[in-house]
Amino acid sequence: MITKEKGMTFLKTQRKYAAILGNLGNTKDRFCGGYKDNPDTMEMLRRASKIESVRGIELVGTWDVRRDNYCEVKRAFDSLGLSCVSIIPDLFADKLWGSGSIAAKDKSVRIKAMEYLRVMCGIALEMNCKIINIWPGQDGYDYPLQGNYIEERKHMTENIAKIAAEFPQLRFALEYKAKEPRTHSYLARMADTLLVCLQTGMDNVGVTIDTGHSFLGGEIIAEAVVLAKAAGDKLFHMHFNDNYRSWDDDMIVASIHTVEYIELIYWLDECGYGGWFSMDQYPYREDAAGAISESILWLKKFDILVDENREALSKYIAAGNAVATSQFLRSLI
Amino acid sequence: MITKEKGMTFLKTQRKYAAILGNLGNTKDRFCGGYKDNPDTMEMLRRASKIESVRGIELVGTWDVRRDNYCEVKRAFDSLGLSCVSIIPDLFADKLWGSGSIAAKDKSVRIKAMEYLRVMCGIALEMNCKIINIWPGQDGYDYPLQGNYIEERKHMTENIAKIAAEFPQLRFALEYKAKEPRTHSYLARMADTLLVCLQTGMDNVGVTIDTGHSFLGGEIIAEAVVLAKAAGDKLFHMHFNDNYRSWDDDMIVASIHTVEYIELIYWLDECGYGGWFSMDQYPYREDAAGAISESILWLKKFDILVDENREALSKYIAAGNAVATSQFLRSLI
Amino acid sequence: MITKEKGMTFLKTQRKYAAILGNLGNTKDRFCGGYKDNPDTMEMLRRASKIESVRGIELVGTWDVRRDNYCEVKRAFDSLGLSCVSIIPDLFADKLWGSGSIAAKDKSVRIKAMEYLRVMCGIALEMNCKIINIWPGQDGYDYPLQGNYIEERKHMTENIAKIAAEFPQLRFALEYKAKEPRTHSYLARMADTLLVCLQTGMDNVGVTIDTGHSFLGGEIIAEAVVLAKAAGDKLFHMHFNDNYRSWDDDMIVASIHTVEYIELIYWLDECGYGGWFSMDQYPYREDAAGAISESILWLKKFDILVDENREALSKYIAAGNAVATSQFLRSLI
Amino acid sequence: MITKEKGMTFLKTQRKYAAILGNLGNTKDRFCGGYKDNPDTMEMLRRASKIESVRGIELVGTWDVRRDNYCEVKRAFDSLGLSCVSIIPDLFADKLWGSGSIAAKDKSVRIKAMEYLRVMCGIALEMNCKIINIWPGQDGYDYPLQGNYIEERKHMTENIAKIAAEFPQLRFALEYKAKEPRTHSYLARMADTLLVCLQTGMDNVGVTIDTGHSFLGGEIIAEAVVLAKAAGDKLFHMHFNDNYRSWDDDMIVASIHTVEYIELIYWLDECGYGGWFSMDQYPYREDAAGAISESILWLKKFDILVDENREALSKYIAAGNAVATSQFLRSLI
Repeated sequence: MITKEKGMTFLKTQRKYAAILGNLGNTKDRFCGGYKDNPDTMEMLRRASKIESVRGIELVGTWDVRRDNYCEVKRAFDSLGLSCVSIIPDLFADKLWGSGSIAAKDKSVRIKAMEYLRVMCGIALEMNCKIINIWPGQDGYDYPLQGNYIEERKHMTENIAKIAAEFPQLRFALEYKAKEPRTHSYLARMADTLLVCLQTGMDNVGVTIDTGHSFLGGEIIAEAVVLAKAAGDKLFHMHFNDNYRSWDDDMIVASIHTVEYIELIYWLDECGYGGWFSMDQYPYREDAAGAISESILWLKKFDILVDENREALSKYIAAGNAVATSQFLRSLI
Repeated sequence: MITKEKGMTFLKTQRKYAAILGNLGNTKDRFCGGYKDNPDTMEMLRRASKIESVRGIELVGTWDVRRDNYCEVKRAFDSLGLSCVSIIPDLFADKLWGSGSIAAKDKSVRIKAMEYLRVMCGIALEMNCKIINIWPGQDGYDYPLQGNYIEERKHMTENIAKIAAEFPQLRFALEYKAKEPRTHSYLARMADTLLVCLQTGMDNVGVTIDTGHSFLGGEIIAEAVVLAKAAGDKLFHMHFNDNYRSWDDDMIVASIHTVEYIELIYWLDECGYGGWFSMDQYPYREDAAGAISESILWLKKFDILVDENREALSKYIAAGNAVATSQFLRSLI
Repeated sequence: MITKEKGMTFLKTQRKYAAILGNLGNTKDRFCGGYKDNPDTMEMLRRASKIESVRGIELVGTWDVRRDNYCEVKRAFDSLGLSCVSIIPDLFADKLWGSGSIAAKDKSVRIKAMEYLRVMCGIALEMNCKIINIWPGQDGYDYPLQGNYIEERKHMTENIAKIAAEFPQLRFALEYKAKEPRTHSYLARMADTLLVCLQTGMDNVGVTIDTGHSFLGGEIIAEAVVLAKAAGDKLFHMHFNDNYRSWDDDMIVASIHTVEYIELIYWLDECGYGGWFSMDQYPYREDAAGAISESILWLKKFDILVDENREALSKYIAAGNAVATSQFLRSLI
Repeated sequence: MITKEKGMTFLKTQRKYAAILGNLGNTKDRFCGGYKDNPDTMEMLRRASKIESVRGIELVGTWDVRRDNYCEVKRAFDSLGLSCVSIIPDLFADKLWGSGSIAAKDKSVRIKAMEYLRVMCGIALEMNCKIINIWPGQDGYDYPLQGNYIEERKHMTENIAKIAAEFPQLRFALEYKAKEPRTHSYLARMADTLLVCLQTGMDNVGVTIDTGHSFLGGEIIAEAVVLAKAAGDKLFHMHFNDNYRSWDDDMIVASIHTVEYIELIYWLDECGYGGWFSMDQYPYREDAAGAISESILWLKKFDILVDENREALSKYIAAGNAVATSQFLRSLI
């Protein structure tokens, strides 16, 4: 069911790097109100634009962009030479969605969530932004016997299908994450999110992989990429960060994992992914621009490794001999 | 996409209990060759038949049933009044499948695995057994850069589609498990297994939930049941055991979890599951018949709790108020 | 090395229940600034005093109690008939301690942390509070090659020894937690915290078990209780809540685990624990007083179960027969 | 409490590499009786002796060495120029210890375990082997309410103290592992094992770190090394392998982790570890000698990296700036 494009030539220079704007400011956790002072949106944009290779920015709805400021934000993007890669509607921080947004038990909340999504889609069109990155972080459940899995999943699927039908010019990238802020999210891993995509029946509904969410969910990210390809080219977007596999620590890329990123890049290329590489971190205690920059520089290093060794990697994957692969990887360092 | 059957009446007496035969004997792990002596197949059958409520038995191919003994085994089933619930082809213990079976890199191994499956399907037909429970435990990978996720997943899907087409009288229940014996299995959780089912396009391909595998994979089992329902009544079979969520400990049901089984039974009924409740444990150090019996008795206890409180449970799920649900659950004990 | 007190008679009415005041208000996480409105300290105290069986309150330093308000708070305690069970100095929420407090790399920060602790100890003496519950949540590290394990652990131990020597009238209960807000904390589990206790050489330094932290750390809580007993009666305090074992979800007691609490209470009594049972939850989306009350009522239920079956429990533990224990537990429900 | 030896010069050539003999043969798991054919002890020794840099061998008692063959084994060691690094008494594979060995509930089993240990200690003396590596894998519990934590831990401690007192010429290295074959082991992590060491009061009782067990237990290995140092130079031995942090996969070193090994080697040197680097793997499907060799070659690579960058590493650890450390690590590749 996957047709590998033969002779596909990968050009490293085509890689498009981006960052989520909030990475440059937001540093609160449930204990501490903020490890650093939070610059305003315009100052964060200026700082982001100075990070080498960053050409695109993702905005969180309401936080960064609203009806009252999107024209100003768009002008700032234009003057700084940045693209608006995606808008991430805030379906997670407003207490209105505290017990769910598009899959909430409360119908009036679902209606408000859809109205809010429409506003954000409208702004996206105005800003020439192609992707709505939907992370329905509050849509899930905390306790056993709390979720009505049938009804709430149905609301989720129907509402995504509806908004996607209303805005055919936009692509809706569903970002999965197994837990936090709920102990369990309805969009937990790649495969269940693909089932939702397929159930919507909409071509413009796909998936965002956040590398940390994938680690957290117990996935091998490269395999998640292949699952999305096999389901019909459903990988729309990529968020990058690292963690210890048990929580969404949102750390610098490659601070924990190494070979997994090499494998990921290999399979992203095999599957013909042409989207953005966007950084999504929480540099609570670190210099934010430095942390984002490090992630990009590691990804570039891995890109070079993969590019220079693509044939060898194919050969080792085909053979599946762990000893030989270890020898090869050792030779790269 | 799910039509709940209104007015569905649940009768506890309809529940059908079974056990995997090997539970009564096999107790080796990678260190110890056997914590107890292993009785032979006929002795295990006799012991199983004496466990209260056990009316069906699952057999592991080759271990328990082969071309040379299936007539004798069938006679024993008949004389003991047992049904052959499923045959579980041995795609995991024979060193021939050490690096994969139906998804192996080696084409000659895949061909042998398919030939073996055909033999087992033939025996199933002879034994009036309706389910082939496929657990492709060796189909996966251990190391990064070892699996060719595109090719091997394609082999898996195509071979399952092929055997299912060849034996339309049988139902093929795919048993997922995130890891062991490989560090990563291709059939890891409900959602990715449903994607394989859908990709085969065959109505007689569905899923087995092993409750321990579901815990291990980070799932809420009840939600996995609903996913299977929503994908088109794809829950074909159930294996029961318990563990600490981090490994397939194959313990007595309810030794660790409680409310999760109550929730599971509630949603199995909501989704109209009418299949077997089969025990799948590894009583390394315990009396085997006693351990199986305990699991069944716990499930019966939960059945009664659910049956007596079905309306209340529906109401608490609809409300989703954790404090009220806690009060209610406390009143049950 | 443990002398079990023979003939020890357990009286349920001796159990002392408490709650951490912030449970009644604080509901922010790193995404949402607050799922509910936060009542002020006095209002939280009034609400806490109305929860059945709550006779004591733990205060977080600075948040709830400071030099400028402790007299007023003390009057409120007196008028409401509450005891101040412990003060939990805020070593985790002030950005000053963002990279560590008593084990910080920065000596000036360590000095400030000690000065702050002295203020809190002084207030404790004024309030007739016997326990300083030290949770050094920021003392740890996030990245590999970030912590100087030798030096920072030494600072931690020396500073705890120093403050304990300065305030011999107080007991210092060290609360361990493997992670959050750092990816790794220096006080991670019971055994490493006991090593710190022993290294201080101070009798008034012991440990707080937070049941959720113990689950999170992969411990069996009852065994942690026994470790503390064996190290010289080092269990000073208990915090109660529940979670799914992978994160500090701070849920209602018994919402996930059941038998573990029964076992815990059994061993608390065996080890002669006579301290408080204090509730420590984060009822983000729940009625706070209701959530605390539920936890206490579950603990009382377990207390009754243990009290009525103490001899049987001893017998089943002595035998270690999982099938027989399962039968017994089934009979209790 | 730790005195760092100033001016300590590290010479890479001093590193002593070893392997556990069974790595070259044993490949069974609980499903498959053996992925490869098992060579006999003498053949395994010959193969081990040919792996570059391997100068020492660890033997499992009974499996590899017994009263009836130790003279022959010793001659083979001598003729192959190998040292017997340790004997690992088989307290885990014999069904006699199925429910515990030195901490078993059954006194007659404990007595037999001690008699067996004495035999193994006697053989060690004859073979000029200095370390008894005790892995009491069956000493623990599977179910809640199964372990008598007070009594069984006391048996464990007293029996270790006793055997250590009887054989003062030997060093007893306790190998911890949180689980498998029991769901919970009494020696679970470094800190609790150090508490046992301290409770024995014997200088010749210390700890073995198995890197995979440390990952599995949620430890940062380098910090475990420092804990052992701080408790009085208690790190007696090192076993090396790798895994995915959730199970003892016994994989080739550095197949998953990278920076953790660099950090580990740095702190081993800081703490003056002078013992063996012994490989402990389960190459189920791999060429065994190749898998062991790869682990050693990766460790040598890390040794060079650490040796060439020791001052820089010290500086980055002292600063604790994750961005700067990331830049530095990136420059190494």
